Amino acid sequence: IVSVPREQLWVPDINIAEYMDEDKAPKTPYVYLYNTGHVFDDKPLRVVSSCRLVIYTFPFDIQNCSLTFGPYLHFATDIRMIQGLTSEEILNQSQDVLQTNGEWELTGISVAPSTLALHEGSYSEIKYYIILRRRPVLYVVNLLIPSCFLITVDLFSFLLPLQTVDRSSFKMTLILGYTVFLLIMNDLLPVTGETTPLINVFFSISLALMVGSLLETVLITNIQCGSSQYSAVPHWLSILVLRYLAVVVFLPRKKKSSQHTVFLNPSLGVKPPPEPALDELRKLSRDLLAIRLQVDKHFQGSETSQEWQMIGIVIDRLLFGLYIVFIAVSFITIICLWSKHYAA
Amino acid sequence: IVSVPREQLWVPDINIAEYMDEDKAPKTPYVYLYNTGHVFDDKPLRVVSSCRLVIYTFPFDIQNCSLTFGPYLHFATDIRMIQGLTSEEILNQSQDVLQTNGEWELTGISVAPSTLALHEGSYSEIKYYIILRRRPVLYVVNLLIPSCFLITVDLFSFLLPLQTVDRSSFKMTLILGYTVFLLIMNDLLPVTGETTPLINVFFSISLALMVGSLLETVLITNIQCGSSQYSAVPHWLSILVLRYLAVVVFLPRKKKSSQHTVFLNPSLGVKPPPEPALDELRKLSRDLLAIRLQVDKHFQGSETSQEWQMIGIVIDRLLFGLYIVFIAVSFITIICLWSKHYAA
Amino acid sequence: IVSVPREQLWVPDINIAEYMDEDKAPKTPYVYLYNTGHVFDDKPLRVVSSCRLVIYTFPFDIQNCSLTFGPYLHFATDIRMIQGLTSEEILNQSQDVLQTNGEWELTGISVAPSTLALHEGSYSEIKYYIILRRRPVLYVVNLLIPSCFLITVDLFSFLLPLQTVDRSSFKMTLILGYTVFLLIMNDLLPVTGETTPLINVFFSISLALMVGSLLETVLITNIQCGSSQYSAVPHWLSILVLRYLAVVVFLPRKKKSSQHTVFLNPSLGVKPPPEPALDELRKLSRDLLAIRLQVDKHFQGSETSQEWQMIGIVIDRLLFGLYIVFIAVSFITIICLWSKHYAA
Amino acid sequence: IVSVPREQLWVPDINIAEYMDEDKAPKTPYVYLYNTGHVFDDKPLRVVSSCRLVIYTFPFDIQNCSLTFGPYLHFATDIRMIQGLTSEEILNQSQDVLQTNGEWELTGISVAPSTLALHEGSYSEIKYYIILRRRPVLYVVNLLIPSCFLITVDLFSFLLPLQTVDRSSFKMTLILGYTVFLLIMNDLLPVTGETTPLINVFFSISLALMVGSLLETVLITNIQCGSSQYSAVPHWLSILVLRYLAVVVFLPRKKKSSQHTVFLNPSLGVKPPPEPALDELRKLSRDLLAIRLQVDKHFQGSETSQEWQMIGIVIDRLLFGLYIVFIAVSFITIICLWSKHYAA
Amino acid sequence: IVSVPREQLWVPDINIAEYMDEDKAPKTPYVYLYNTGHVFDDKPLRVVSSCRLVIYTFPFDIQNCSLTFGPYLHFATDIRMIQGLTSEEILNQSQDVLQTNGEWELTGISVAPSTLALHEGSYSEIKYYIILRRRPVLYVVNLLIPSCFLITVDLFSFLLPLQTVDRSSFKMTLILGYTVFLLIMNDLLPVTGETTPLINVFFSISLALMVGSLLETVLITNIQCGSSQYSAVPHWLSILVLRYLAVVVFLPRKKKSSQHTVFLNPSLGVKPPPEPALDELRKLSRDLLAIRLQVDKHFQGSETSQEWQMIGIVIDRLLFGLYIVFIAVSFITIICLWSKHYAA
Repeated sequence: IVSVPREQLWVPDINIAEYMDEDKAPKTPYVYLYNTGHVFDDKPLRVVSSCRLVIYTFPFDIQNCSLTFGPYLHFATDIRMIQGLTSEEILNQSQDVLQTNGEWELTGISVAPSTLALHEGSYSEIKYYIILRRRPVLYVVNLLIPSCFLITVDLFSFLLPLQTVDRSSFKMTLILGYTVFLLIMNDLLPVTGETTPLINVFFSISLALMVGSLLETVLITNIQCGSSQYSAVPHWLSILVLRYLAVVVFLPRKKKSSQHTVFLNPSLGVKPPPEPALDELRKLSRDLLAIRLQVDKHFQGSETSQEWQMIGIVIDRLLFGLYIVFIAVSFITIICLWSKHYAA
Repeated sequence: IVSVPREQLWVPDINIAEYMDEDKAPKTPYVYLYNTGHVFDDKPLRVVSSCRLVIYTFPFDIQNCSLTFGPYLHFATDIRMIQGLTSEEILNQSQDVLQTNGEWELTGISVAPSTLALHEGSYSEIKYYIILRRRPVLYVVNLLIPSCFLITVDLFSFLLPLQTVDRSSFKMTLILGYTVFLLIMNDLLPVTGETTPLINVFFSISLALMVGSLLETVLITNIQCGSSQYSAVPHWLSILVLRYLAVVVFLPRKKKSSQHTVFLNPSLGVKPPPEPALDELRKLSRDLLAIRLQVDKHFQGSETSQEWQMIGIVIDRLLFGLYIVFIAVSFITIICLWSKHYAA
Repeated sequence: IVSVPREQLWVPDINIAEYMDEDKAPKTPYVYLYNTGHVFDDKPLRVVSSCRLVIYTFPFDIQNCSLTFGPYLHFATDIRMIQGLTSEEILNQSQDVLQTNGEWELTGISVAPSTLALHEGSYSEIKYYIILRRRPVLYVVNLLIPSCFLITVDLFSFLLPLQTVDRSSFKMTLILGYTVFLLIMNDLLPVTGETTPLINVFFSISLALMVGSLLETVLITNIQCGSSQYSAVPHWLSILVLRYLAVVVFLPRKKKSSQHTVFLNPSLGVKPPPEPALDELRKLSRDLLAIRLQVDKHFQGSETSQEWQMIGIVIDRLLFGLYIVFIAVSFITIICLWSKHYAA
Repeated sequence: IVSVPREQLWVPDINIAEYMDEDKAPKTPYVYLYNTGHVFDDKPLRVVSSCRLVIYTFPFDIQNCSLTFGPYLHFATDIRMIQGLTSEEILNQSQDVLQTNGEWELTGISVAPSTLALHEGSYSEIKYYIILRRRPVLYVVNLLIPSCFLITVDLFSFLLPLQTVDRSSFKMTLILGYTVFLLIMNDLLPVTGETTPLINVFFSISLALMVGSLLETVLITNIQCGSSQYSAVPHWLSILVLRYLAVVVFLPRKKKSSQHTVFLNPSLGVKPPPEPALDELRKLSRDLLAIRLQVDKHFQGSETSQEWQMIGIVIDRLLFGLYIVFIAVSFITIICLWSKHYAA
Repeated sequence: IVSVPREQLWVPDINIAEYMDEDKAPKTPYVYLYNTGHVFDDKPLRVVSSCRLVIYTFPFDIQNCSLTFGPYLHFATDIRMIQGLTSEEILNQSQDVLQTNGEWELTGISVAPSTLALHEGSYSEIKYYIILRRRPVLYVVNLLIPSCFLITVDLFSFLLPLQTVDRSSFKMTLILGYTVFLLIMNDLLPVTGETTPLINVFFSISLALMVGSLLETVLITNIQCGSSQYSAVPHWLSILVLRYLAVVVFLPRKKKSSQHTVFLNPSLGVKPPPEPALDELRKLSRDLLAIRLQVDKHFQGSETSQEWQMIGIVIDRLLFGLYIVFIAVSFITIICLWSKHYAA
């Protein structure tokens, strides 16, 4: 074994097909010649290569990248590439010296000699397949968990009573938070390749659900609070919602307390003889009645608006149920897809 | 066919007119000489070139970039550039080895020999036109869909009843969310070229609509809630809004319940003889009347402010209609422009 | 005309005084010798130079950058720099091949031969002045228009009635939105040079106006809603504000309805003879009076706080007027400065 | 001692095993030959190396990086690496000339000669271990302190009375602030290595606590404000919560004021003889009773909802206690881990 | 004077000790030999050096950086470095050609010959000290002024009346705005060096003040609005706060209006003879009394909660005062430190 300056031998360079950038590693001017005819080129290479990422199951993805080594000029009759170490040895040595930024984990290396056959002749090549598994902790902690938190908050916000708390404003703030959150995502997510990653579908569904539930809240708020200007509930709607849908959402229809309308009519029809004290009493009575009507109207609302409010509650609860079902189905689907691809 | 070191032949370099940066690809020291007189230079080139993007229809744009190959020194009489492969072969090979970051899709390559005629002589050149189509999924998911969501929320927010919910605060939060959203856009959007892209027009219209509807809400809120300090509604305004515009927005004018003013006057004019019990009753009556007036005023507002509120409702609904019409027209226009350019 | 390798002639390099970075353009090894004695060096140069930007009128600024070409070694007696093309030809050719990122527009090129006289001898130089005009669309759309929108919203928010809507919270959200907006600005704005750009003054004034109007709102809110704990309005303040300032802001002073205080005193001084029914009536009367006083106080507030509220309204409207005047003056000034510099 | 051009001696280069990038330091063409046979190579090297960071205790972490110097070609029989200075001298000199960006503090250097034994022969090497301590001030000020502030605000927000202030909206804004804060973190935090840093656990727990307390608030709000539509409290729940849990949270059960139900029944059963004045009085009585019932219901709520509210208060206080305990335990644990690792 | 190619003379390179990166300036192949024995090397150098910044007083800091020129190989006996121009000439020429990005202003240059004495011999060196003053306008406008604005808003927010406006929510939004603002800061601020800059202390104090005042607001809100469930005020607290502290904050203790409790007791003890009309009247009386008690309680609160509210107001005003004092002291201190260091 002799080490000889590279230039004195005209040993042709071994090229890497996936090369992308100039080699910036320090140059080594020697190759080793063995008496067996083997040539051992101990040249360090700094390869910046590109690998077609399959990010459909991001952040639970496993990538398979290849590096092809071969002579640039000489055919297979002149130079034959021989695998020096077994793939297990390479894997072990690589895992010892590998220093990643922690995101990727080297899980396997496999080697396969191959031949590039052109019509002028064929070249001997060696292909190394490098299998990298992404460590998903960072993305789970920073993307998936907060997103699930926000969806959970959105789900729970259906419990906020519409009359006392401004639920629409609450949900608007939630969506604002989700928009801020989209900012973080754009920094962390890889740009979408040919297939849209599942996680993008996940986020789009989440945003759509939030917006949908906000629109529902605005609608119910309009029914609940703005119903004083509505005309009477159509009969079919009343029957449909209050009799049938109400049962579906476990909300028994309340009996109307028809008490207060009974009292009103007689007090207007009586016409007693004019007498000073009685006159005063009647004026008192009229005023008190007027106050009572106002108070009744203020605290209970008219019968029409009460019926509208009841319809609002039933629809709110119904859509809440549908929302839960939809979230459950879509998230279970996504998790199934992730776990299937991750296991594979 | 012989491969000869490049230096020993003084083969002139082939240049690329659109070159922008130094070539950093690994050097190959050989060219192939064929006995037919053809010279085949298998040199890999790493070209960083610039291409004038036409981003009017971004993100649905198709770009046409050209690469011009030619000798730097020798006239067409010395070196003639010949197309080695057909454009279909180049396209197929390119699509096999192409590795983009997923945003661009290579849809076509066309080749055209050309001649650069200067007055010293003419150079033989070959021009390659590369047609790239942008994959719009990322931008549709991250920019267009959330923006449409926010516009939809803004549209629905007209349903929020002004008296019970603070609609102006809701819309302000919405605009805040849109501002955050503008942050994301600035990261994703290409800088505007000579023509402003349609998507910028889209976003500007969206923001203008939101701000406009917020200003409208502030105005209506002022009319609705601050009307207690207004002077009486001018007659022409009352006629115009409540009789004509109200019909346009399907809001029949409510009949005023003129009942309560009738009761008030007689109770003040009566002067009964002084008697202890009666005196007490009258005091009672006066106090009760005072309370009743306060309650009436609180729950119903004065007639003037009721009329102002009615005007507010009519204008609110009218502008809501105009808002819908404007959104519909402008968005349909933009979508038409996009689809026309995308199909072309 | 012969093209000769550069090395065989020892043609000295032509230098650019404004050079900043190593030339990375592909090297050309030939220069052209004409039989007239002219030497034509067709060397492509990739110059990364710096130019002192005058950004006072950003984004409506026009920059004037210079490139100086000259020999590094030989005095004017040995090498004289001669302008090959007229400045119009250069401008036309440049505009044909120029590929900017769309922000800058080449509007003019002028040429001037000059001489660098050192005490060892003088060098022949050629100076090219390149006039670039910034295309302001991007900045107008992303910075100026949204900023004006936010200022307009701030202006309109004075219309929000203080009693029913939380105007201070509305303005706080607005300022929050402006802060987010400042984030976008910091990405887009060039760092300030020796003179502060007008646009920075514009944004600072906008922010100051918003904060000022928020502070005003907080103050008026304190006067309007917290006045129940105030002592009586000082006489001079009452006169000043309600008599003089109220006229300035077109707010006629309302006559106080002095009706309700008249009723109160007699009902307390009467002492009728004890009798069961009358006694009950008196208790009734006392309770009713107490309720009425509470109701009066709740709905109208005490006279003191009514006066304070009136003062609050007057001051609010007065400052609103001043705010409009100030905005108008400062914005007109800025626009005048911009247009003056842009036209110049 | 003679300084001789490096090329004339064929002195082999000394390599650094951790090399990552091309050496860009200015080249020195000489080495020093001593008459003792020592060769002193004064070559400056600009090494961009990588070091496996252990960031479990970030930002209180101490890193230990190594640099290995050795000949690339010659065995230990030809070249022996000798340590020129003691590690104390190196440390002192390094601390004098070191210019970091302030984040890292050089706290120690140790040297160890080592041997790389391959089967062809062994190489003489010298390893330098560099111990760097991170200055945590930036991260404590920008990450830990604001995060603790937000957690404290979340803790205090339990004191906000649910009936008068919209606590859920307050907490939602707080979480929005925390999301913005996550944006800052993503800029500052190093990407997670193989082990998740404690600080990530800290932030995740903080976010989980905030979301958890928000959900609790939504639940209690539902119980407190929406209880008017609930059915009666189950007996076991009432006993469990109001008798046992209430004691745990130091909230004595209030005695119900059963006074007002007593008054109601007799007034409905009495049927006096018809007489004009008496008739009026009875109408008065009926109306007043109706008003009173409304007022009672409005101000106190029904007995059922009062009981639900009491349950809400007890659970609120109970979970507040649990929240405090959980925060205390988890933060003390984290601080202990940090301080233990920092001291070690 | 002759200009000779550098290689033909073996003129040793002059090195710069602070060198950090490879020199990328265009190479000049000549040096000037004077007949006086002086050698003039007109070589342009592009130095990327590092300078230990002292950022304690950022953005009002003045930096002092040094550049050391000396031969790499030859001792002072062979090459002596001589200062060509006076420091004033250098300063003037530098200010003429200097093109910074506007942040730094060159205010002084001083020159000092020095000697690097090693034990093999001593080297002749020249040190240039460059004094740079940071232009603080950008940071004052973008960091200090908005921060002061937010602090001012926080200060004024104490004026928001707690009963009518949700002050805690207002302050929460303010803190949210400050968090967004921290994002901007992280982009603009230099990383902290060995000493923490004063501006960081400034921002930390600001944030701490905001959070502290928010916590105070939550506490006072609890006292003000949640006091209906409190037990009676302890006597010592009542005395301490209402008698002594109230005087400190110029809040005279209001006399309690003890009127309404007097009326209540007699109406319950009277037992008149049963008579129909009187009976009705008594029922009326009872109902009215019940209503009045509810109204009283609703509008005034119980005496206990009134006392708690008074305590809340006193503490609020007291802490407001302390807050002002603390802000004033800390800001004056910081401004003094800044101005002292800036003047020095």
